[in-house]
Amino acid sequence: VLVDSRSGGPKVNPDIRKGEAKVVDTVDIEDIGKKGVFCRCWRSAKFPYCDGSHNKFNDCAGDNTGPLIITKKDE
Amino acid sequence: VLVDSRSGGPKVNPDIRKGEAKVVDTVDIEDIGKKGVFCRCWRSAKFPYCDGSHNKFNDCAGDNTGPLIITKKDE
Ligand code: FES
Ligand code: FES
Repeated sequence: VLVDSRSGGPKVNPDIRKGEAKVVDTVDIEDIGKKGVFCRCWRSAKFPYCDGSHNKFNDCAGDNTGPLIITKKDE
Repeated sequence: VLVDSRSGGPKVNPDIRKGEAKVVDTVDIEDIGKKGVFCRCWRSAKFPYCDGSHNKFNDCAGDNTGPLIITKKDE
């Protein structure tokens, strides 16, 4: 398949919630616990959480995406 | 420019920290304060934080990316 990038270029998000004009997720710090791992490759089946799919995506696309990790220090 | 997606398809991250095998950011909850807005479109000049560039990217690419927002309830 050839993609003509003159018409705006490839999408970052091919599939997730395409009915929404803009996919924004809001998460409460209180709901994260000790560690939250959030997807930035847009290939996770658990979006907005990371399920490790970035590794397969990176291998296939020659990319280097990875998650955002939110951590809480031990108290 | 034509992109041959048979060779893995387009990248999600065209420019950010391409010297790293996988771009992972770890942020302490303690450093977020009341609200943190994190980029998932990979076009922010303030990556890993969102600077609003997702809007221009979405317009150009016909996409619907948006940030992850981490919030803290009022106490
Ligand atoms: S599955 Fe998307 S960043 Fe991990
Ligand atoms: S600038 Fe990338 S999601 Fe806002």
